[in-house]
Order: sequence, then structure tokens, then C-alpha cells
Amino acid sequence: MSRFFSSKLKSLVPYTPGEQPKDNEYIKLNTNESPYPPSEKAIQYAANAAKKLQLYPDPECSELHSIMAQNLGVSKNQILMTNGSDEILNFAFMAFCDDDHPAAFPDISYGFYKVFAQINNIPYCQIPLRDDFTINADDYVGINKTIFIANPNAPTGIALPLSHIEKIVSSNPDNVVVIDEAYVDFGGMSAVKLINKYDNLLVTQTFSKSRSMAGARLGFGIGCESLIADLNTIKYSTNPYNINSMTMAAGIGCVMDDEYTKKNCAEIMATREFTAEELKKLGFEVTDSCTNFLFARHQRIGGEKIYAELKKRGILVRHFDKEKIADYNRITIGTKEQMTTLIDTTKKILEEC
Amino acid sequence: MSRFFSSKLKSLVPYTPGEQPKDNEYIKLNTNESPYPPSEKAIQYAANAAKKLQLYPDPECSELHSIMAQNLGVSKNQILMTNGSDEILNFAFMAFCDDDHPAAFPDISYGFYKVFAQINNIPYCQIPLRDDFTINADDYVGINKTIFIANPNAPTGIALPLSHIEKIVSSNPDNVVVIDEAYVDFGGMSAVKLINKYDNLLVTQTFSKSRSMAGARLGFGIGCESLIADLNTIKYSTNPYNINSMTMAAGIGCVMDDEYTKKNCAEIMATREFTAEELKKLGFEVTDSCTNFLFARHQRIGGEKIYAELKKRGILVRHFDKEKIADYNRITIGTKEQMTTLIDTTKKILEEC
Repeated sequence: MSRFFSSKLKSLVPYTPGEQPKDNEYIKLNTNESPYPPSEKAIQYAANAAKKLQLYPDPECSELHSIMAQNLGVSKNQILMTNGSDEILNFAFMAFCDDDHPAAFPDISYGFYKVFAQINNIPYCQIPLRDDFTINADDYVGINKTIFIANPNAPTGIALPLSHIEKIVSSNPDNVVVIDEAYVDFGGMSAVKLINKYDNLLVTQTFSKSRSMAGARLGFGIGCESLIADLNTIKYSTNPYNINSMTMAAGIGCVMDDEYTKKNCAEIMATREFTAEELKKLGFEVTDSCTNFLFARHQRIGGEKIYAELKKRGILVRHFDKEKIADYNRITIGTKEQMTTLIDTTKKILEEC
Repeated sequence: MSRFFSSKLKSLVPYTPGEQPKDNEYIKLNTNESPYPPSEKAIQYAANAAKKLQLYPDPECSELHSIMAQNLGVSKNQILMTNGSDEILNFAFMAFCDDDHPAAFPDISYGFYKVFAQINNIPYCQIPLRDDFTINADDYVGINKTIFIANPNAPTGIALPLSHIEKIVSSNPDNVVVIDEAYVDFGGMSAVKLINKYDNLLVTQTFSKSRSMAGARLGFGIGCESLIADLNTIKYSTNPYNINSMTMAAGIGCVMDDEYTKKNCAEIMATREFTAEELKKLGFEVTDSCTNFLFARHQRIGGEKIYAELKKRGILVRHFDKEKIADYNRITIGTKEQMTTLIDTTKKILEEC
């Protein structure tokens, strides 16, 4: 830290992305990437856009906003594309939280919520999950805070029924409720259909998981026009050209090829069920996942041990030190072949340990 | 504005990007883009990266940081790549300004400094340029504020000698001085060579102008390791994957093809001198530009009038309403052919008005 770093940030603990070791070729099941390449159309469109990089991208993302609006059945002014969904989440913390509107989110959830609160000097409270890792919607009823809920939740993978989400949104009419649907395409129920009913609902999604575009950094928020206008004010006050031309083009190509995304999601869900069954046979307890990952602990061997043994054998999964979940690992669903290797390798580890 | 928008931001006035009208094909001389396409290598590398978009980009940007460090003659830990230079500028406001370290910048300069100060709730003062639009370095000596100076300055195009920059940096040892060198490659003197001498100096640059990559969103900061570490803390607390894979790859390709960038810069500087001479012949007063644009006013006809007449005839230049500079227009240097069209069109306007 330099002697110039603002004192208001000195206790900030940044987010730690999943490891990307360069010492070896790993089977990467640690950052919830898709095992499938992006749509051919996305690749072609991006390559074409690269030829005209001398020009600024359209700051209004007009074409992408139009096709997205059509795809989601909302109006163009109810959507905002961002540089990954991290950006729209940060914008929401900036726009809708302050001393009078503290943030609230589950104690076990996307680790970045806490960091966004800290960097924006926003008071926050973390609401414990139930012992079975489910979110108790009643804990959020009428709490008068700006609420952030990942649905399905990470790293647990568990989805909250839409009726519970609606209960939270409707009981906090004077606060924004942000539903982070990064993983919704793998079996969750989207709250997008509620945005015309509630002016305090913001839904965020991403191209990183189901759409095979983690490398492109493309996320978005959907909400009523006035919420989106506020988020646009933040965008135009931080980074008006937040979506580069290639990502914008790739996004358009990807949405045009929506069937490909749907096919991949179905494949990943099938592989998830296969993997969950196999892990259960090996003595794992696996949460009921609606995502592209599993959250699993073994009855006998600790989470960190399994993580380390898998890494030694060329497979990366994600382990979190946090006490409540230290027995678990978050395992991204790869191809069926990759998951078979994971299961075979795990079998060997269990025999040896 | 929604009823949820934080009261601390209610007076925020966002930045307005240069217009990108879709009603017509214009000769675009209004956003300081390069008239030349990106390097072939940049295009190829980006197209290749598009094929692997399912994977997250390297959050450490290792390869790009290495090649940039080599190119600039600094160490890898003295540089940070960002999503355009707007992002590193915003990071600097967040990291190095607060109530005890207010910001200071020229009253006529990049319009975003004021917005960055406002969105981060940072007190700021704007220091007037001299009447000839030059920066008086003495106004910044020992002022105990975090200083932001665009050198060369925009929209004036005028460069401050490096000795004046050094005077500002050395006389404010307890505050960070940010030198925004977005336009330095068109004839300015870079302060990068001073970063090992002063721990309070941060230099920012961009791939948007000289490197023909405005559409890719790639900027960077150069400073001592501890300043860069602070900026990394901000990055990992807002958007760890701020550089997408395609932009990262295009950046690497571009730096490998540095000769192409240098050739384009030389071409643009020659066209600038040609254009300046021609405009002077037509009765324009033109500042001494070290950038890829000219800042010019006519002895007889107002800036807004000229802007409007040019737009009517298919040429976009940038006009600013601010009183002190309302007589002027900022004219990006395009190809020689484009500038000849500009001059011919201007001649006609002068005859008619």
C-alpha cells in the first residue's frame, strides 16, 4: 500500500478470483466456465468487429440492447448491458445504497457483494442461511434495506422459488431488491417477468456461464425504466464506453444463436445430474443444484484435502476457507468426459486417503 | 431518476460522449479516433481470442503487462492495464482523493475529471488556464491537492514542457500527480521516465488514439509499484476481469507491431501541420497542437455556427458550449483526403456565411 492510499479504503479486502495456475494444464472446474465454445456467430461477429477497432463503440449499445430486449420480452429502456455482471452489481451498490439504505445479503453467497459494499462505504448486514443452506425469505420481509440475492445462490447452487422472491420484493417497496441470476439458465426461475409489476426490482444476468462468453465480459440488468435510467447515470459517470465493439458484436451473434445456448444448457444440466448421482455413490452429500456447478462434501474427507488431492492430479475445483462451508467444494460442470475423469480421480483419492 | 436513487448522487451530471448520429454517413472528426485501422496483428490476435471466449480472461493480464513493460522500459509491477484510460483515471480518483486530498485540475481540460470527482464525492477545484490556453505550472506548485493534468491538454491540444510537469510533481511530494497522456504520441513529451524518481507520479495512456483501438477499450497507468498496488486493490474490488480476452490479445498484437503505430502517428502529425496551415489561410486561429486534433476558431464566424454548417454538409467536429471556448471547435485529424474535404467545405461555408 502506498502512503497516498485514501484512508477510507485502508481496510478494504479485495475479491479473489478463482486461481488460474500457469504451471500445468488443468481440467478447470473452478470458475464456472462453460465447457463449450461460444456460438460460431459470436466468434464471426467479434472477428469482424476487430477490423474496425479504430472507432469508438456505440456508447448506447443500441443494436445489442434491441436484440436483448426482444429476446427477453422487455422494452429497450428496461435493460442495460455492462462490462460483466460485476459492473451492474457495482452500479447498483453505488446507485441504490447509502447510509440510509444499507445493503443486506446472505452470509453465504457471491463473495463480491461484501467487497462492493466496502469499496462504496456502504453499511451492510449478512443474513445467515438456514443450516441446510437455503435462504429463508422471511428473513428479508420488510427489512428496509437494499437486498442482494443470488438466485440460484452461489456457491450452494440452491434456487429460491419465484414466489419467495416476490414476497421479498413486495414487502420492501421502498428499497431496491437485486436478484442476481448469473446461473438462472441452468434450471432456476427468472424474476424478469416481475419487472413490470414492481418498480423496486432489478434482475441481473450474464453471458459468462450459459452463453460461453466469460472472456468477453458481458452482463446486464433488467428493471423498470427509472431504475435503468439511474444505472445509466452511473455508467455515463464512470465508463460510457463500457462495452467494447468486439464484445458488443459477439453478444449480438450469441443472442441470434439462442438455440445453441439452450442446447448447451440442457447438456450441462444432464451432465450435472449424472455427476451428482456418481458423487453420491462415492459418499458425497450434494446440494440440490440449479446451476452449472455442484456443491459437495464428503462424509469422511475434508473439503480442503479433496481440493488439494484433485489439484495434485490435474483437476481444479474451488474451495472456500469460510468455516461454515469449509467441508465443501464447488465443482463446475464440464463435459461428460471431464466429469468422468473427475469421478474416476475422486474414486482413487478416496481409496488412498 | 427513480425514487431509489441515492441522495448523494442526485446532483451528478454525467459525461456526454461525442455524438454518433445514425441518420447519415459522416466524416467523423469529432471523437479523436484514428483514421487508420488497427494493426493486422491486433485484428488476427483478437479473432483468435474470440474462439475461446468461454474461458475467463487472465485477471492479471500477465502477457500483456510483460510486453507493455518491455515496450515502455518499466517493470511489470509498475503498470496496470484498464478498461480504457477512463477506468484508470476513475481508479485514481477513488484511490488517491478524499476530503483530505481534494482534486485539482485545469478549468479547461478533459470534461470527465469533474464527473469522476463528483461521483466519488471528492471536493475539487478547477484552476483557470492562462488566456492563451496554456497551463501555468506555478498555479500547481505546492498546492497540496491530488492533481490531474492532461498533457498534451484537451481540447486545447497544447503540451506542457516536461520540466514544468516535473516542477509540479516535485513540489507536491505528499500528493499524487496524475499526468493523463492520452495524446502524448502525437508530439508530447512523456513523463514515464520520471516514475522511478517520484513515488507520487502516475502517468496514464491509452490505446484509443495512436494505436487505433478506441473500440477495444484499453488504457493503462504507469507509476511506482506501491501506487500500482493501490490501483490493483481498486481493480480487484470493482472488476477483476476488467480486460476481456479479445482486447487483451489485440493489445499484445498491437504492441508487437509498434512500427505501424509509429508510422500512423507520423502520418497524422504531418496531416495536422498541413491542416493547420490551410485553416490559418482561411482566417482561423489554431492553437499549437501536439495531439491528433486541432483547436481552432475563426476570426469572423462563431464556433457553433461552423460546427452546425459542417454537420449539415456531412462533417462532424466537436463543439463545446463552455463560454471560454465556445468560439472554438475541436477537429480530429483524419486522413489527408478527409482533411482536404474539411478545408474545401469550410471554404464554401465561409463564402456563404
